Amino acid sequence: MPIEPLDVVGIGNAIVDVLAPADDAFLDGHGLVKGAMTLIDEHRAHALYDAMGPATEVSGGSVANSAVGIASLGGRSGYIGKVRNDQLGGIFRHDIRAAGVEFATPAAEDGPPTARCLVLVTPDAQRTLQTYLGACVELGPDDIDADMVAGARVTYLEGYLWDPPKAKEAFLRAADIAHQAGRKVALSLSDPFCVDRHRDSFRDLVHGHVDILFANEEEIVSLYKANGFDAALQQARGQCEIAVLTRSEKGAVIVAGDEVHVIDAAPAPKVVDSTGAGDLFAAGFLYGHTQGNDLAASARIGAVCAAEIIGHIGARPERPLAALLKEKLG
Amino acid sequence: MPIEPLDVVGIGNAIVDVLAPADDAFLDGHGLVKGAMTLIDEHRAHALYDAMGPATEVSGGSVANSAVGIASLGGRSGYIGKVRNDQLGGIFRHDIRAAGVEFATPAAEDGPPTARCLVLVTPDAQRTLQTYLGACVELGPDDIDADMVAGARVTYLEGYLWDPPKAKEAFLRAADIAHQAGRKVALSLSDPFCVDRHRDSFRDLVHGHVDILFANEEEIVSLYKANGFDAALQQARGQCEIAVLTRSEKGAVIVAGDEVHVIDAAPAPKVVDSTGAGDLFAAGFLYGHTQGNDLAASARIGAVCAAEIIGHIGARPERPLAALLKEKLG
Repeated sequence: MPIEPLDVVGIGNAIVDVLAPADDAFLDGHGLVKGAMTLIDEHRAHALYDAMGPATEVSGGSVANSAVGIASLGGRSGYIGKVRNDQLGGIFRHDIRAAGVEFATPAAEDGPPTARCLVLVTPDAQRTLQTYLGACVELGPDDIDADMVAGARVTYLEGYLWDPPKAKEAFLRAADIAHQAGRKVALSLSDPFCVDRHRDSFRDLVHGHVDILFANEEEIVSLYKANGFDAALQQARGQCEIAVLTRSEKGAVIVAGDEVHVIDAAPAPKVVDSTGAGDLFAAGFLYGHTQGNDLAASARIGAVCAAEIIGHIGARPERPLAALLKEKLG
Repeated sequence: MPIEPLDVVGIGNAIVDVLAPADDAFLDGHGLVKGAMTLIDEHRAHALYDAMGPATEVSGGSVANSAVGIASLGGRSGYIGKVRNDQLGGIFRHDIRAAGVEFATPAAEDGPPTARCLVLVTPDAQRTLQTYLGACVELGPDDIDADMVAGARVTYLEGYLWDPPKAKEAFLRAADIAHQAGRKVALSLSDPFCVDRHRDSFRDLVHGHVDILFANEEEIVSLYKANGFDAALQQARGQCEIAVLTRSEKGAVIVAGDEVHVIDAAPAPKVVDSTGAGDLFAAGFLYGHTQGNDLAASARIGAVCAAEIIGHIGARPERPLAALLKEKLG
């Protein structure tokens, strides 16, 4: 257990991103759905990698990106996720720790290699994600550090954890520990396709286990099969303590009981790559919230962090967010 | 043996670069010489990596970068270099093949892991390189594909090969095969510190085994312990068939017997990162030369390639050089 309790502990799929440019013909030729995150098996991962152009490797994972963002803001964050004891696992571990995040989940000594996400970047700046979950399928309830979770103000889980078979047990175990310790549980719905895969489970989670829900417009509409954003917003209201609904350049809507806040997006000089916008909005919101800010102020911090991340390639901040926050919000 | 003989086969240290920002205090605190390439052992590599910030991984290696540049220009290039059969080795192999370079050197099945170069990028855009040679120490004469070398118009070797113990035998074997087949041998001096480590050997090489020498100003001055560039130029003249001496923004001087050409640097809108300038100048020159261009025209191709590479981070081209060449030189 850390000497001081954490503000936020994230639990997610520990993934190294493998980025390469590609054109539409490549996507079509390999039957890829542009802009989506698709799960692939090891065989497919090898075949696709063989066909891809020269690439760059960088640590990723949705909630891992958020944990890094919180540390960059000056918050205390931890991460629980499964890598294999291999070189990519070493890269993931190094990068998240070097960013200031507590990370001590034991690496798998055998079984599938560390997860990777093949990211094909088309000339229109869209990213098509093909994820091989690898060692993430080994994450189970025994990997949950009960002291870390019980001590953290918020335990933040990603919907993607519903994809590997044992992770949902880990997920529920963590939620139980957090609640028994009087802590909050947050969930990101991750991706509209992920919501499609696990809609009923996610509805149960949101109603029974989650205090703070993060979703973008497509995800919340998908969760409730709603007829548009406002209809989804009305359904989400009252289902969990706080719902943080992000809408890209339209800003965000925060709903908590009778409270409703509509927060503008922060100015973004140019949008280079929207990857990680949701991860960093969540980082900013959770940092603000755990530091005692009200909902609107927390959302404004989230908006500033999201604007930073979309201004460059990659989903981890390029400059210390604490300094950026001071500059933008005083 | 490839169906068609290659224009250029490169032989070098097969390395994956690990890039992270760092400040001067970090360099000072770890006793690093800014801007230099220093060899480190595995223990030091681990300690330094642990201390470094979050990083990005990308394939590197000096002559490997040149081989990629030649393929990008539309030339036929091959590469001989040693990785381990591990994940970083798989990344190196994927990237160089995906760039269109023939690469079939068997990976080491045991021994040290694939080489990596820890690249610390300071705010002044300088790069401080710490290289752990890893599996490169396993490269030996048996790794030289005699058919590939005998068939290639030029065999291009990097001075860095003089650092690992057995590679120099591979180097000399390749030079012998090339010459017996009536082919040319080219050498890059790699780095002024590398010249310091191997000055006598390099002088013997240049006088006895090398037809085309690539060196920048610091390297050629160091080779002859000369009093300035012109003195070094006079010494180099006549020692090998062609000497290609690069001088950053001052352009390049090509010396071949009585022929001397002074070629301006190509316009570079902004210099983002000078890494790879020499590698890509050599790529352009060797491509031009093996396509039958005269010395001055070949050097102009080198200058255009070098200008592309310094306009962005990283030592491998971001756009197809064949198209760039058509645009710049018609």
